[in-house]
Amino acid sequence: MTKRGVLAIISGFSGAGKGTIVGELVRKYDYAISISATTRNPREGEEEGVNYFFKSREAFEKMIDEDALIEYAQYLGNYYGTPKEYVMRQLDAGRDVLLEIEMQGALKVKERFPETTLIFITPPDVSELRRRLEGRGTETPEVIGRRIARAKEECAYMQKYDYIVVNDQLEDCVEQMHALLQSLHYAGYNQLDLIHEITAGFQDI
Amino acid sequence: MTKRGVLAIISGFSGAGKGTIVGELVRKYDYAISISATTRNPREGEEEGVNYFFKSREAFEKMIDEDALIEYAQYLGNYYGTPKEYVMRQLDAGRDVLLEIEMQGALKVKERFPETTLIFITPPDVSELRRRLEGRGTETPEVIGRRIARAKEECAYMQKYDYIVVNDQLEDCVEQMHALLQSLHYAGYNQLDLIHEITAGFQDI
Repeated sequence: MTKRGVLAIISGFSGAGKGTIVGELVRKYDYAISISATTRNPREGEEEGVNYFFKSREAFEKMIDEDALIEYAQYLGNYYGTPKEYVMRQLDAGRDVLLEIEMQGALKVKERFPETTLIFITPPDVSELRRRLEGRGTETPEVIGRRIARAKEECAYMQKYDYIVVNDQLEDCVEQMHALLQSLHYAGYNQLDLIHEITAGFQDI
Repeated sequence: MTKRGVLAIISGFSGAGKGTIVGELVRKYDYAISISATTRNPREGEEEGVNYFFKSREAFEKMIDEDALIEYAQYLGNYYGTPKEYVMRQLDAGRDVLLEIEMQGALKVKERFPETTLIFITPPDVSELRRRLEGRGTETPEVIGRRIARAKEECAYMQKYDYIVVNDQLEDCVEQMHALLQSLHYAGYNQLDLIHEITAGFQDI
């Protein structure tokens, strides 16, 4: 029997380096990343089934009705969501799957699928976080204000995450994330088959 | 500020190799192990403060009264327990501490100190577990019967553990345990200082 993969959601402050870390995990260690469905139009170079599954509004709403999405949200008039089937197929095949989702969505997924692990990535300290939020001096005060307001809000979600990982040096952080993700295979809720098998085995002794 | 160490309890079936694994973790990675207090007499070669803290019955019962033990139990007319002060001092100094305790004791510790992580070590499968329980053919049927009865009981506790780690190849298991233990530093309940620091930092922005 193939051991089922683990499902982890990666969230974090703007500028924490989530995307880069997830990219490195996929490149170095062959994690699967979930591919989102969206109703927005493909941009130049984006490929169906690689960057997104592109859907009509009707098709997307049919997926909602059929409970075919792990989570979804609307943003600027378009739907974005995570198709369930693709993720489940990867997990069943024994691959570990990473979802990069913002925090409110992440908590909703955890509610529905408690075996999901929530990982929050943060810069090492407030001054570094502030620097990243304020950008490189090229942002308008309005944009900076919005980023800070958002990060302030996001702070409240940190304590609901299973793990908080600091991204100070990228390479270190990628290795820490890999060790953490592999350790999830030993988590009790991912070892139920083993527990059942051993318990059942005692009936015959 | 020194980051506080993590506290992990290691339990597992008889013959799972717990002692060897803990010994290797201490040797290779400098984990601290808790030293038990006991009322039994020192055996030849055993040193005070190295193998055990040897106590009179009165001194031990005083520790119980003063809530100076993380857990304790009686076995063959002697007390055995884990002094709180030694463990807390190691954790405060930033060292990760391993406690090797049987399952009922482990669950009691978890109740009192929820930030404790419970790790269960098991042989890879039932036939291997059975082989180890049955010994090398040198045990009496009575001893084998007691071991099996005990392991059967212990099965029920497995699902209360945070992590279940399989000890198939010792060296692999030691490395897996080390990665797992290090990952615990990122667990939300071990990152409260960081969360508070970042949240507080936003007040000044």
